[in-house]
Amino acid sequence: MPLISEFDLIQQYFFQKKIKNPENTLGIGDDCALMTVPTGYELAITTDTMVEGVHFFPDANPWQLGYKLLAVNLSDLAAMGARPIAFSLALTIPEAHSIWLAEFSKGLFDLATQFSVDLIGGDTTSGSLTLTIQAMGLVPKERAMLRSNAEIGDLIFVTGNLGDSGLGLEIEKGYKCPSPEQILKQFHQPIPRVLEGQAINGYANACIDLSDGIASDLKHILKKSNVGAQLDWDKIPLSKEVFRYIQETDNWQMPLSAGDDYELCFTVNPEKVDMIKINCTQVGIIEEKLGLRIRRLGKTDELKGKGYEHFS
Amino acid sequence: MPLISEFDLIQQYFFQKKIKNPENTLGIGDDCALMTVPTGYELAITTDTMVEGVHFFPDANPWQLGYKLLAVNLSDLAAMGARPIAFSLALTIPEAHSIWLAEFSKGLFDLATQFSVDLIGGDTTSGSLTLTIQAMGLVPKERAMLRSNAEIGDLIFVTGNLGDSGLGLEIEKGYKCPSPEQILKQFHQPIPRVLEGQAINGYANACIDLSDGIASDLKHILKKSNVGAQLDWDKIPLSKEVFRYIQETDNWQMPLSAGDDYELCFTVNPEKVDMIKINCTQVGIIEEKLGLRIRRLGKTDELKGKGYEHFS
Repeated sequence: MPLISEFDLIQQYFFQKKIKNPENTLGIGDDCALMTVPTGYELAITTDTMVEGVHFFPDANPWQLGYKLLAVNLSDLAAMGARPIAFSLALTIPEAHSIWLAEFSKGLFDLATQFSVDLIGGDTTSGSLTLTIQAMGLVPKERAMLRSNAEIGDLIFVTGNLGDSGLGLEIEKGYKCPSPEQILKQFHQPIPRVLEGQAINGYANACIDLSDGIASDLKHILKKSNVGAQLDWDKIPLSKEVFRYIQETDNWQMPLSAGDDYELCFTVNPEKVDMIKINCTQVGIIEEKLGLRIRRLGKTDELKGKGYEHFS
Repeated sequence: MPLISEFDLIQQYFFQKKIKNPENTLGIGDDCALMTVPTGYELAITTDTMVEGVHFFPDANPWQLGYKLLAVNLSDLAAMGARPIAFSLALTIPEAHSIWLAEFSKGLFDLATQFSVDLIGGDTTSGSLTLTIQAMGLVPKERAMLRSNAEIGDLIFVTGNLGDSGLGLEIEKGYKCPSPEQILKQFHQPIPRVLEGQAINGYANACIDLSDGIASDLKHILKKSNVGAQLDWDKIPLSKEVFRYIQETDNWQMPLSAGDDYELCFTVNPEKVDMIKINCTQVGIIEEKLGLRIRRLGKTDELKGKGYEHFS
């Protein structure tokens, strides 16, 4: 194990030669980074941590870790309709393992390059593997899609399919899927819906990203907006692999309660649905009656189930 | 041990009823926080992590931990001359222990209230105790005191005394100090030089906060500014406790190489020293000849010694 100083580690693996966004006026290397925010914009700020043994297996692929750590943060920016411009990294690692660091930073920068977002700072410490990113993006002033903005009568949409990441976890645990490639890719390398979030900003009301499953995440919108909702089971978009999994296991709630999909769930006034230009599926409607219900096999039932909770 | 959900934990210990800074347009509770930056200002952003067993002892007082975690971040903002407005908290804890959480959050908010800074978001996860704060502040555009701004002939100043925190650590390890109270307070509860940083912004050139000792931190300024410096040992400000420690141990380098002082070290053009209105001490001068030297007992020697390094 070659020893390396903190400065050399940052220089070798995390120093980005060229800043892509002119808003980032100072990057890594001083007491602080510096940023400007153009007039007419707000800065959206989000923080997500991933912990070994809690959010990922101890032998997790470091490229995928780097990618996913940034992806889950960009997904939160997407849910506000923000354009990501910068992130900082708090990296706590047990040892400076050069192959691990090279792969981890490559995963991080591969996604950062895809969405033109700059690494502007952070901190590197020794300790149990704990990864935190704070990501920042620009959103037109007073246009962020808040959880509190849903209105009665709004139609509820989701991007992509639900449950692919949940199935990916089942596959990792041993479930036999005849065609696992795309499912595992969605689990390990979800594409954050950054472009979709910006595209719907302007006509969508409320929006949230699906990190804990729609049965849990949609409830945040309902609570903050003081409304209820009904989903239609037949409309829930599923991959054929998840469809087959449900046929085999009868666990139809999995795509509603499994986490890590990182799709967007958003509400739109029915008069504005013609403005939607992204691929998405209408799965339900916002109602006055509080609570979250689902219509399935001719019956309407309360949708229980919540996502993963730490400390419970 | 009572169980508590992540939402209840945030609500109970970290939810701040009233946002103090009008720039923070949305706090905790959505996918992102939102912030505006006034025209003519840049946002300064810093991240610092503290890890149990590395930065603090496993039985550390949680009030002091909360206080110090925010203090070290505000100290970085101070070094840029920024006014702190907001911070986010990535809290990774092994279990939700209510007394620990109550004390930790009290330490955090006691300091946050003192400097009117708002907690606007973060993430709470289970895992080994790892604490990360990202703090943000406003600095007039193109006025941040960069490490690269030192000029040949500048006088070098420090706020406060050097080595009190280093002595505090020695006391914790068993050194007998006849009057340890103030020393231990400086070690556990350093007051970040937020007001001093803003006061000197406008006439100071380069600035850094002393987290690793002046022998190490000043070298960052020298390297970035491509200059050298000479310190004068007789001018180094010491408390009588540190002076006594040096008499007893002959370890005169301790106040230069021990970390955690969180004083500011800054350089000022000699023609502008009359503008200085804060308590500080001139300890040296910026020179053309590269390297860091110290004049002591009639001799000038290279000043070796570096601060704490992870992974080395």
